[in-house]
Amino acid sequence: MSETLFAKHQDTLNAAVAATQSRDYFSPFKENPSPRAYGETANKDGENAFKAHIGADFALQMPGITGKAGSEQSPYGFEINTQYPAVDLDVLLPEMEAARKAWREIGVEGRAGICMEMLERINKASFEIGYAVMHTSGQGFMMAFQAGGPHAQDRGMEALAYGYQAMMSAPAAATWTKPQGKHDPLVMDKKFTVVGRGVGLVIGCSTFPTWNTYPGLFASLVTGNPTIVKPHPAAILPAAISIKIAQDVLVENGLPAHIVSMVIDEDPAKPCTAELAQRDEIKVIDFTGNTPFGNWLEDNCRQAQVYTEKAGVNTIIIDSTDDFKGLVRNLSFTLSLYSGQMCTTPQDIFVPAGGIETEDGHKSFDEVAQAISTGVTKFLSDPERAGMVLGAIQAPATAERIQASKGLGEVVRDSEAMDNPWFKDARVHSPLIMTIDADKEATYMQELFGPISFVVKTADTAQSIALASKAVKEHGAITMGCYSTDEAVLAQIEEASLDAGVALSCNLTGGVFVNQSAAFSDFHATGANPAANACLADLAFVANRFRVVQSRRHPK
Amino acid sequence: MSETLFAKHQDTLNAAVAATQSRDYFSPFKENPSPRAYGETANKDGENAFKAHIGADFALQMPGITGKAGSEQSPYGFEINTQYPAVDLDVLLPEMEAARKAWREIGVEGRAGICMEMLERINKASFEIGYAVMHTSGQGFMMAFQAGGPHAQDRGMEALAYGYQAMMSAPAAATWTKPQGKHDPLVMDKKFTVVGRGVGLVIGCSTFPTWNTYPGLFASLVTGNPTIVKPHPAAILPAAISIKIAQDVLVENGLPAHIVSMVIDEDPAKPCTAELAQRDEIKVIDFTGNTPFGNWLEDNCRQAQVYTEKAGVNTIIIDSTDDFKGLVRNLSFTLSLYSGQMCTTPQDIFVPAGGIETEDGHKSFDEVAQAISTGVTKFLSDPERAGMVLGAIQAPATAERIQASKGLGEVVRDSEAMDNPWFKDARVHSPLIMTIDADKEATYMQELFGPISFVVKTADTAQSIALASKAVKEHGAITMGCYSTDEAVLAQIEEASLDAGVALSCNLTGGVFVNQSAAFSDFHATGANPAANACLADLAFVANRFRVVQSRRHPK
Repeated sequence: MSETLFAKHQDTLNAAVAATQSRDYFSPFKENPSPRAYGETANKDGENAFKAHIGADFALQMPGITGKAGSEQSPYGFEINTQYPAVDLDVLLPEMEAARKAWREIGVEGRAGICMEMLERINKASFEIGYAVMHTSGQGFMMAFQAGGPHAQDRGMEALAYGYQAMMSAPAAATWTKPQGKHDPLVMDKKFTVVGRGVGLVIGCSTFPTWNTYPGLFASLVTGNPTIVKPHPAAILPAAISIKIAQDVLVENGLPAHIVSMVIDEDPAKPCTAELAQRDEIKVIDFTGNTPFGNWLEDNCRQAQVYTEKAGVNTIIIDSTDDFKGLVRNLSFTLSLYSGQMCTTPQDIFVPAGGIETEDGHKSFDEVAQAISTGVTKFLSDPERAGMVLGAIQAPATAERIQASKGLGEVVRDSEAMDNPWFKDARVHSPLIMTIDADKEATYMQELFGPISFVVKTADTAQSIALASKAVKEHGAITMGCYSTDEAVLAQIEEASLDAGVALSCNLTGGVFVNQSAAFSDFHATGANPAANACLADLAFVANRFRVVQSRRHPK
Repeated sequence: MSETLFAKHQDTLNAAVAATQSRDYFSPFKENPSPRAYGETANKDGENAFKAHIGADFALQMPGITGKAGSEQSPYGFEINTQYPAVDLDVLLPEMEAARKAWREIGVEGRAGICMEMLERINKASFEIGYAVMHTSGQGFMMAFQAGGPHAQDRGMEALAYGYQAMMSAPAAATWTKPQGKHDPLVMDKKFTVVGRGVGLVIGCSTFPTWNTYPGLFASLVTGNPTIVKPHPAAILPAAISIKIAQDVLVENGLPAHIVSMVIDEDPAKPCTAELAQRDEIKVIDFTGNTPFGNWLEDNCRQAQVYTEKAGVNTIIIDSTDDFKGLVRNLSFTLSLYSGQMCTTPQDIFVPAGGIETEDGHKSFDEVAQAISTGVTKFLSDPERAGMVLGAIQAPATAERIQASKGLGEVVRDSEAMDNPWFKDARVHSPLIMTIDADKEATYMQELFGPISFVVKTADTAQSIALASKAVKEHGAITMGCYSTDEAVLAQIEEASLDAGVALSCNLTGGVFVNQSAAFSDFHATGANPAANACLADLAFVANRFRVVQSRRHPK
């Protein structure tokens, strides 16, 4: 049956592999939540399916279930409290280890077909998952649908495609014929079997519970590792819906459901992640979250390959522009989107003290800072647009951080609590923008997660480049943006981005934003600076998740 | 100029990439040390070149040279004492770090062309290197030439080809065009630049000073990392000759010579390897050697990617055979070759207490053990053949270990000191073969490096399989061999080899030996058991040695 699935999905998989190589636009999943793409009743059905989970039990098939737990709350102001199975690791992990054999024997194409089918079914649940992402992460619905649905599925397929191509780099069998001059050649028949490393573990985050979970999940799965998802306690539901679908596909193909499992904290006050991550059965770990725990995993889970995406300080260098209005518009959306709670949102915008040249003539430092602040305010002046784009603040700690940060610089645009047009108890706070002098590095180079930005006053663009590089090298970054009309300056900034190891976006003034990256084309994180020790996704993200074991003999 | 080199070597490089994918026989370098292949005077010239190094100064171009050192001795009984430059790490490492930029800017094809040229030039020095390998490792000349010359060069090119294909998995540039329905598409021009991780370090071993050094060296180099070789103090010369050639190619191409450098211990009593390996500039480490230091590197060099090949306990399972004479002949050569000093030589041969079936009828356990012992003795009865195949014992500690091991089992074939026909002071000891009961695991499952083997008496083949698996899982192994006429038994053994993660050779009775592996076809080590955390070579061996940094902007 898994052969049928491989045949069904082979063309798409090959197209996905080709896209990772061409880096042109490719998306197997429709990003528009339209009735035409997803069906007339898809939105309503998805919303109803989400609502049916509220306060209900969520069933998953795993050995060793001991009870239930769950205490999710929507940042839009209501309780979700879905109850998920809690499991005994001493029962689950040996059973997952035992399931490696069946998962290995189904082979590369068998696993690829099954994983592709999982993604296709997950895509059909994009509305249900979209509402679940919205009400756990706090994202606005459109973003929750796109980033939590099709774009996350794209990233999952991208990782799957990399795993597939890495495994296909060796054939399943070969004949080796070595000439021996006048004598008969030496001939050996050889078999090459892909063997997973063990059990995989994917530790999710609260802000992107699917986008940051699918790559590790599908990379580990397709390469032969039964995999556990350990979602963030605040954002379990999107993972649980995905895992339920994955388990259905496994069972339909005669495989143990628990090849994909989920572990949650039975008691949120006693998180089990550290214990789980150090279990001997766990050989691959993917983590998205805070730097201290990411570093702890890297240092302490020596039995496993550990892939981490941690915190960083993203930067923008403004040197000059021939489209100041476009710059302001672009940055206003970037700073507003999901209230700055993206790992790609810029925190520090470096502007020379002497100001910049624009198509409208010279703009002073203060004029630039003011224009960006006013741009954000204007952009958010439409309450529905503000509600959709800002979403809600995921964690109370982030809201507190905004308040606590107001004294760190000179406030140009104050953050205010806002109403959401549809959810009266939503936790909404608009972006805080401050100016600060370049010498206050200790302040603006710490990561201040949330809608908190600094316009940093530098001596000149050379200093802007030096400080932005330093932020990347010392604190890590996933994105760097820049604006300049001078090719020599752009070349200098590009050189700095290569040295620091961070993806650069130049002169974005239209419909592409520094905090957005496109699967199959943009590498998300580089693995070359402290923000992440890996990239989503490339060959390095998959090649160490499996080994090839060979057997050779002379032909009969 | 590096473009010319890429064009010159492109066809061979493409053939090498294709070979890693087909796993058929491929060798760009001639393994026969014949005048026709290497020139009429190549042997004599190479020997003279080797002799000219004895007691002489060896020049390399590196910043920070402080003095000279070197105290190599030939296991064939004379002093080499070539003097190599000692360097100040505080000068060398910052200069190597600074050379990253030039090495990055020459690009993927530039680096590939230069590395291919280095290998071609190294190939031309195969006789000089062969004599240097012979007189540091103790290998017989034919093996030193082949394994230290063309076969090592093959392994270097294999790693280079993997690095090249991994880097080529992303294009250098791409245009991304995202349709926007009725609106103009979003278009971005993107650049993707391969960036090395930092400075590479390859820590060599005394027994295979080139074969185990070239893969890490060329994998790190081609992916953009200036690389230091730290040879074993007993086997510096083969590395030094190779590095000198690499430096010549770099200089001819206008690049800093020290992109490939060599560090030795200024005082052999105070090895500098641990300090060097922990330097912040070192981001990739390749190590071949003992398990404790390999584990130490993995645990303590957290700033680097660490690839290790350590010790192991290789096994043979004998269940039955239809070619007992071939089995004995094959194992006699295997146990004799380089006096068992290969990381692939079997140590434990599991045979059922009840004996085995053969084409000549039943053979008892004792008959099997005796036949292998007699086979070795007969094979070594020709003094010239014995001298060529056994070579010499590299380290005095290995000779002492043979003596100390004689009480560990019941001696079936005693090891004796032997004369070498050409070198009267050579350190030569023939293989020691003992029988032992299966329950003496603590004895035969420790690695006893050198020509020391056990024929282990097991209850039956099922126990043989269980014990061989246990040896792999707990102590590591690079090879496993087996003999059976029963397909069901072979399938069980193959399953066990997949579970334990070790390469299997079945029923070798002809001209292929369990301790030999062919570049481009056989994966050397798996990375799936404690003998090695990586394989030479596969995508996992190269993919983490570089990162891709992107830059994007809208087209004009």
